[in-house]
Amino acid sequence: MTYDFYYWPGIQGRGEFVRLALEQAGADYRDVARQDDGMAAMQAFVAGEEAGALPFAPPFLKAGDLVIAQVANILLYLGTQHEITPPDEAGRLWAHQLQLTVTDFVLESHDTHHPVANALYYEEQVEEAKRYSANFLELRLPKYLAYFENVIARNPSGSGMMIGEGPTYPDLSVFQCVAGLRYAFPKAMARIEPDYPNVAALHDTVAALPRIAAYLASERRIPFNAHGVFRQYPELDA
Amino acid sequence: MTYDFYYWPGIQGRGEFVRLALEQAGADYRDVARQDDGMAAMQAFVAGEEAGALPFAPPFLKAGDLVIAQVANILLYLGTQHEITPPDEAGRLWAHQLQLTVTDFVLESHDTHHPVANALYYEEQVEEAKRYSANFLELRLPKYLAYFENVIARNPSGSGMMIGEGPTYPDLSVFQCVAGLRYAFPKAMARIEPDYPNVAALHDTVAALPRIAAYLASERRIPFNAHGVFRQYPELDA
Repeated sequence: MTYDFYYWPGIQGRGEFVRLALEQAGADYRDVARQDDGMAAMQAFVAGEEAGALPFAPPFLKAGDLVIAQVANILLYLGTQHEITPPDEAGRLWAHQLQLTVTDFVLESHDTHHPVANALYYEEQVEEAKRYSANFLELRLPKYLAYFENVIARNPSGSGMMIGEGPTYPDLSVFQCVAGLRYAFPKAMARIEPDYPNVAALHDTVAALPRIAAYLASERRIPFNAHGVFRQYPELDA
Repeated sequence: MTYDFYYWPGIQGRGEFVRLALEQAGADYRDVARQDDGMAAMQAFVAGEEAGALPFAPPFLKAGDLVIAQVANILLYLGTQHEITPPDEAGRLWAHQLQLTVTDFVLESHDTHHPVANALYYEEQVEEAKRYSANFLELRLPKYLAYFENVIARNPSGSGMMIGEGPTYPDLSVFQCVAGLRYAFPKAMARIEPDYPNVAALHDTVAALPRIAAYLASERRIPFNAHGVFRQYPELDA
């Protein structure tokens, strides 16, 4: 089956967590909104003009007759179709739990530059962003990194991944968080990251997976930029 | 099986979405942290002193050997065990997609009073909270309510619930959002809610379900208060 994947064409954003899973799965997919007339096709789903589950927002995936939105839900589905999830129920719930913790982490990473409202420009909420970011870098970022560090250390397989021999879809997502945070907060990450060697090693292992490495080197990987979840504002990188 | 449910004992909070599902399922459960020594038992899981999946934070559910954290993940699991989820794969993915949209809605509802940091008191972020809340009430709250209104209207069964004849677990969660928002923003909700009659009717239908009505009338239902997700600060209710 060829999947149709729908997300804003100019950014990695939340869609990137899905793209990484599709790539590691070796899935056949179209990144629809990056093709001619793709944006109109995407908007038709959000406007309720298409059959199937109504997305609140992109990203969403069309898989045959299924329309599936929300990143973690798409990954839950892809996990049932491809070998990027544990084979047993306990492992699948654990993977999804980790993914939902990633969801929280991503939201907080995003809110460093948009703590008041998405509807306002960054420039309209710089002071709030400075305050939010200071707390994020002092308390929240270390708390999330410590959590994932601990999860990797507790994995009985000792694989360096979070679940079993891996990689499973939350490993791909933690890679993306680390890559994004290094882009957004180079100074803070250089200072904080050495305390979490398991997380840094997981990042490197995922980046070196043959399919992921090929993807990252391709034009399918949109570079980080000033419009996505992870943005580089030096004044926030204390 | 008797479930052990773990959450902060003094608030509805995020745990309430799980409590409502347990109640509607007619499940046998202990609300552990509300019992003697329950807080210490809860903290032991978060500290990594117990086997099984490591929770990032409460709530979590112990079901036999399984430890399951993250509200939407707990509901996903309970949906496999009880009749609070659609019977087919497409319906289960749709239910989970709706639940993850509720998760976003709840987080934004929470951030109306804590837009900068959970680690700070409300009194330390009142000005930011006013700005966040103004945007939330003008744009985000209507957007979410319009979405759920539309979902109910699109349900081919015409049941007034979101999926099939219902109720499914996201219906219970939307009930809780409406109840919480009426508590937190009585003036804004009185003004905005009439535009979304399907959502208001869903609230009333869920509240009248025999098991939910019994729960709401019981001491197991903690009243809304100044420490949960939904808080009543008149200065934010523009």
